[in-house]
Amino acid sequence: MIMSRIQAAPDEAESNLTDRLLAGLPADAVLTDPDVTASYAHDMASFCPSGAPSVVVLPRTVEQVQHVMRIATELRVPVVPQGARTGLSGAANASDGCIVLSLTRMDRILEINPVDRIAVVEPGVVNAALSRAVNEHGLYYPPDPSSWEMCTIGGNIGTASGGLCCVKYGVTAEYVLGLDVVLADGRLLSTGRRTAKGVAGYDLTRLFVGSEGSLGIVVRAVLALKPQPPQQLVLAAEFPSATAACDAVCRIMAQGHVPSLLELMDRTTVKAVNDYAHMGLPETTEALLLAAFDTPDPAPDLAALGALCEAAGATQVVPADDAAESEMLLQARRLSLVALEAVKGTTMIDDVCVPRSRLGEMLDGVERIAEKYQLTIGVCAHAGDGNTHPTVCFDAQDPDESRRARESFDEIMALGLRLGGTITGEHGVGVLKKEWLAREIGPVGLEMQRAIKQTFDPLGILNPGKLF
Amino acid sequence: MIMSRIQAAPDEAESNLTDRLLAGLPADAVLTDPDVTASYAHDMASFCPSGAPSVVVLPRTVEQVQHVMRIATELRVPVVPQGARTGLSGAANASDGCIVLSLTRMDRILEINPVDRIAVVEPGVVNAALSRAVNEHGLYYPPDPSSWEMCTIGGNIGTASGGLCCVKYGVTAEYVLGLDVVLADGRLLSTGRRTAKGVAGYDLTRLFVGSEGSLGIVVRAVLALKPQPPQQLVLAAEFPSATAACDAVCRIMAQGHVPSLLELMDRTTVKAVNDYAHMGLPETTEALLLAAFDTPDPAPDLAALGALCEAAGATQVVPADDAAESEMLLQARRLSLVALEAVKGTTMIDDVCVPRSRLGEMLDGVERIAEKYQLTIGVCAHAGDGNTHPTVCFDAQDPDESRRARESFDEIMALGLRLGGTITGEHGVGVLKKEWLAREIGPVGLEMQRAIKQTFDPLGILNPGKLF
Repeated sequence: MIMSRIQAAPDEAESNLTDRLLAGLPADAVLTDPDVTASYAHDMASFCPSGAPSVVVLPRTVEQVQHVMRIATELRVPVVPQGARTGLSGAANASDGCIVLSLTRMDRILEINPVDRIAVVEPGVVNAALSRAVNEHGLYYPPDPSSWEMCTIGGNIGTASGGLCCVKYGVTAEYVLGLDVVLADGRLLSTGRRTAKGVAGYDLTRLFVGSEGSLGIVVRAVLALKPQPPQQLVLAAEFPSATAACDAVCRIMAQGHVPSLLELMDRTTVKAVNDYAHMGLPETTEALLLAAFDTPDPAPDLAALGALCEAAGATQVVPADDAAESEMLLQARRLSLVALEAVKGTTMIDDVCVPRSRLGEMLDGVERIAEKYQLTIGVCAHAGDGNTHPTVCFDAQDPDESRRARESFDEIMALGLRLGGTITGEHGVGVLKKEWLAREIGPVGLEMQRAIKQTFDPLGILNPGKLF
Repeated sequence: MIMSRIQAAPDEAESNLTDRLLAGLPADAVLTDPDVTASYAHDMASFCPSGAPSVVVLPRTVEQVQHVMRIATELRVPVVPQGARTGLSGAANASDGCIVLSLTRMDRILEINPVDRIAVVEPGVVNAALSRAVNEHGLYYPPDPSSWEMCTIGGNIGTASGGLCCVKYGVTAEYVLGLDVVLADGRLLSTGRRTAKGVAGYDLTRLFVGSEGSLGIVVRAVLALKPQPPQQLVLAAEFPSATAACDAVCRIMAQGHVPSLLELMDRTTVKAVNDYAHMGLPETTEALLLAAFDTPDPAPDLAALGALCEAAGATQVVPADDAAESEMLLQARRLSLVALEAVKGTTMIDDVCVPRSRLGEMLDGVERIAEKYQLTIGVCAHAGDGNTHPTVCFDAQDPDESRRARESFDEIMALGLRLGGTITGEHGVGVLKKEWLAREIGPVGLEMQRAIKQTFDPLGILNPGKLF
């Protein structure tokens, strides 16, 4: 600590800030070494500016978070809350001179209750840790973003994350029953409930979900759980075109099926995964559809779904033999983004969600955009939700390719909006898409959103520069 | 119209208001006859004051609603939005001199889309009409309040209604994807989306759900639909005590069952239903539990559930033979509130939701409160959700009994809060429980709720006197 202060040669204001923070935090919870604080500068999004934090704080208690916010309010210092920084929109990026408020040390699971089917957790609990802990009680916490082994529940709440489970089980928002939130001025607000139902007053809980730390600091969450379903059984179907695969998705949903996942990988993604992990996926396919059911007897549903795929033109329909083969297929899907990143070294991952009836048009359009900009754009998609992740692969050292990547990324969002979709299905707005938020929600929407921000954070110290 | 104006002898302000409204509304959409407007004074809650509206307007278009709100803003006249007035908290009650804005004529189903699994509706669509319309497409709109044959989707959204389906399918809030809302000043705000997922900006959609018309006027809603499940099969179980029935509920939920309904009727309710409708329910029971599954093969689940009931002390477990018998049992449950009303002429229907692990304590406590106040209090409950409706039966002509009814009603809410519950699981706050809202959400919560109200309705013209 002493060395870092000497190295940092902090000016008076910064030193004052650190001293004030240390008055309510243990020394090991206040990091000022610039080499260390720099490692808290940004999340995993490309093309998002980030600054150098003044200080990183790692509180362990609600009172410590309140202390940080009181000091921040008094000194008018911006606060950037962070979880595991696995986000894909720059929502956790530091700004110059800010306090980075990392919630990773508040990682206790406080309660798991099988009768009430709830868990009470601190924000720093890792998604996978919660999933495993509730499994031991025969329970299931569905939200499963690709980063589930690293990302935190607090981060999931901040960005309203999704995952593969959403087509059947919905997104993070649907599992948040109540929150404790430290407000900008350090006061503690409790929202929601620990009951199955409750409608007392405005739904402030839901307002905080997806608010990217811009309205308050979530320090505790009551989460709804489901009974653990049977292990899902996966079916893979190969299609001669992305359009045919999307047609199959529409048929499946129109027929009333409730798959536990319905994922699409296009040719580019399949090839990238094979190159990266030697998975032996069928490279002759133009689009691979993965579907699963987690019902007690999935065979009849899988057979019916397979028949619908064939009716839509599938050239191969292969149900997994067992849980291990199912898991292997899911692993391939989960590796998609990493594998696409390996193609050219850098990616921009879009997150456009369209009505699923427009999915075919979306994929068609992305292919045309890839041709226009002469880029490799792989698409993996939570197809059952219409939530696509067109992933632009580019060489960040090549300025022209970088420019084309950024332009194609934006054009993909414009396409999504034209198709009645949204610019973000589950990754959030952050820094990356803030110009696009206004385009999606319009001037009245933007004005009301800004008014809410002003209501909760009149000084504008909570994660400034994000969302708007 | 002319006669009504003469009869009403409106003062200048009122006549000015009516004339201004008529400038943007057809004559038949503006009611001023006091005999007629009086019939729009209140919803179905007891003990809630209501006033005499100046005028009732019945717009058919979004533009007409915008016109009404512009005039209301300009003239500073309170506006009370109404659906079918089947609410149970006085949230739709008129205040003196207000404009009642009845949305019942905006009753078109604009779209039903089986691939996207959405419906787009106007607010005046009756719940049952929507349910039947989507059924024809193989789809299912779950929320089913007891008043579903009369209540409107707009009212359901305003009060965030529940029903029998919630234990498996959740409440209205979970089915509202996007809204068009006319703001206090007449501007049109679009929130949310028509996609399965979407996290662009703060969740304003959810903020309006349950806001009881105090933040804006919902004029269009995008609703999520589910595939139509098989007809549910019901099982009835008789218990020697309410505690035993609640124990069964806990066992059922802890074992991971997902019933499509799990309802409880206490002895008083069973007797009231028999007296009212001669249903032949078993009067020897202290508590009747109704459970159902809507899976393709419900028999094994019903058998397992029946065994859990027996382990909890059930004296009789009787599965329905078929859909008709199932429907008869549900009909008995749906008649509970009406039947209890017939006991003494008037009821106050509480709506306390507790963690389901505390359900037994809740029912015990209600019984003690009934003894203390020497009142008949029947309890029917969405037991699987811990959502109880203790229903105080009293003679409104008897001042002492009325006083005891009101006091016991409050004591039931205090009990619910002590057990970690909420004062309202699905009926809302309205006028009836506004003192109690503050007790539940605390001073910081109340301040933030008021701040949101102020943000959306700075002049305080939207349903004033409700919630706070």
